Amino acid sequence: MSAGTGDAAMSMAGPADLTVGIDIGGTSVRASVVDARGTMLDTLRAPTPSTTAALEHCLDRLVTELRDRWSVAAVGLAIAGFLSPDCSTVRFAPHLPWLEAAVPGEMSARLGIPVFAEHDANSAAVAELHFGAAARGNNTLVLALGTGIGAGMLQDGRLYRGSFGVAPEFGHITVVPDGRPCDCGKRGCWERYCSGTALVDTAVELLASADLGHSVLAAETNADPGSLTGRRVAAAAADGDPVATAAFADLARWLGQGLAMIADILDPDLIVLAGGLGAASGLYLDEAREHYAAMVTGAGHRQLARLRATQLGESAGVIGAAQVARDGVAGRREAGTVGGPRAQ
Amino acid sequence: MSAGTGDAAMSMAGPADLTVGIDIGGTSVRASVVDARGTMLDTLRAPTPSTTAALEHCLDRLVTELRDRWSVAAVGLAIAGFLSPDCSTVRFAPHLPWLEAAVPGEMSARLGIPVFAEHDANSAAVAELHFGAAARGNNTLVLALGTGIGAGMLQDGRLYRGSFGVAPEFGHITVVPDGRPCDCGKRGCWERYCSGTALVDTAVELLASADLGHSVLAAETNADPGSLTGRRVAAAAADGDPVATAAFADLARWLGQGLAMIADILDPDLIVLAGGLGAASGLYLDEAREHYAAMVTGAGHRQLARLRATQLGESAGVIGAAQVARDGVAGRREAGTVGGPRAQ
Repeated sequence: MSAGTGDAAMSMAGPADLTVGIDIGGTSVRASVVDARGTMLDTLRAPTPSTTAALEHCLDRLVTELRDRWSVAAVGLAIAGFLSPDCSTVRFAPHLPWLEAAVPGEMSARLGIPVFAEHDANSAAVAELHFGAAARGNNTLVLALGTGIGAGMLQDGRLYRGSFGVAPEFGHITVVPDGRPCDCGKRGCWERYCSGTALVDTAVELLASADLGHSVLAAETNADPGSLTGRRVAAAAADGDPVATAAFADLARWLGQGLAMIADILDPDLIVLAGGLGAASGLYLDEAREHYAAMVTGAGHRQLARLRATQLGESAGVIGAAQVARDGVAGRREAGTVGGPRAQ
Repeated sequence: MSAGTGDAAMSMAGPADLTVGIDIGGTSVRASVVDARGTMLDTLRAPTPSTTAALEHCLDRLVTELRDRWSVAAVGLAIAGFLSPDCSTVRFAPHLPWLEAAVPGEMSARLGIPVFAEHDANSAAVAELHFGAAARGNNTLVLALGTGIGAGMLQDGRLYRGSFGVAPEFGHITVVPDGRPCDCGKRGCWERYCSGTALVDTAVELLASADLGHSVLAAETNADPGSLTGRRVAAAAADGDPVATAAFADLARWLGQGLAMIADILDPDLIVLAGGLGAASGLYLDEAREHYAAMVTGAGHRQLARLRATQLGESAGVIGAAQVARDGVAGRREAGTVGGPRAQ
């Protein structure tokens, strides 16, 4: 943070307008002070500790450090995991140590500041709704393509959580019987074909099976088989590498099929592509849109949801968590579910 | 109709309590006078005419005949097709001659009685909500398994239609890449593996490919290859026929996978199985439930939707259409969509 930026922001925003958003991912934690216009004013990062005690100590330290510099009204946590419908409990999170843990309440008691939790994809959806690509949607599905697939659904501006707080999950829908194995224990899950991880798997398969002409990726993977990343495949595709281009064409096909599924089941008016791959949408979105328009049920007899790429990129989780905290202290937050219990 | 039944009903119900529900399917039309408790008092049937003029004449004749015997307040139409979000127009219907047709308005003008239209699966969902298996659900998915797959979604008692009136469609979601061909032009659609039609296809495949022991179905299909029906497979399975039993086991597996998809995306608290196969749920529901519980994302860390079989069977469409008409004349009907235009 530069002192100048901070002073300018402080002079425009009252203390109640500033909140801390924290995006807690499997590999890193990012915490930012965010103002009411969704601008990140001061950001800290840390690797994600692997034990509950160390993770909570890390979060406390980040908040304390930011509060030393800023007057903030509340803290919001974006968590990659299953939350209870009222968002008071982290039920389980595949890449985090919490299990049936009352994370926001306990953190609030430790730090003496209101703390609110939200699913990470829901946080990203809230951020895109307030400050990004979902601002013009009435019924919006935010689909985050990264290591896996995350999703948040906004119905008339309100998060749709389902009856038990789980909706909507798309990553582990079976799209290929007996297909690629998944960490979840099943095979053929959609995120094994349509994510940054899938992009790498497809490129590796293509390098092994087909002669698509000279690919710079071939030499790189021969030298170090584990070195390929989604980011690297994207960079190679942008340079016209044939294997990377073919991997993106495959991704576009699986994405188009999934978008048709989303349109069939939820019929949104807007789908926002977010996550790590959302920023690279120029490499696949037009082709995915064609597959989607061809595969949707009733093609030609229905309106189709608009497709847009994220405007907030990988900051959406942090900005959304901060907005969840802002809505929480203002009493504007609607946790709870359709047809289920409401937040206390 | 027996005169006794009619007299008893008329003495209990005022004229405004009676409406006509008409279920317009691809092969037959069924029209009933239905009272406010969902009881069908008088039913007429006709084969579905294939031209618009003949179909509309048929509908007019059925309504006129019923109105000669009963004082009814309105007519509801359950239509297997895509309707506009406000239900004023049938956009297209694969097995009916209407295309962009203002069906309810024109029928109302011809007959001088209010007419309301609704998607057939939505009508069935409304019927199960008011009088059947969905009465205790807050967030309910009614899944109709018959010739294909139909579905209606109730959120806090209100139909969820999506932004363009299409949601939720499950039948043509791709579950097998390059799988069984579908009339829709795609391959591997869910309803090609999980419907009455699919049951027959699976039985025929099993008869051709595997020796599962003596099957009465083998002789029948050898004598007349086109004679097998879902109903016949169900009867044979109830008698313990090995091929029919294996076909139902296959159906249970595909249904379980689809139920997991529904739970992942929509997270309802209740799923009602309706349609022709809904009545035969004893042959597959327990096995489907096991597959579903094993395949759902976060199994063991979430509550699962209850599964129930229809209480109204194949009458759900008629009873629901009559209820749509009753709600329509009472001004209680919420057509329109989440995030989309409302009914006029």
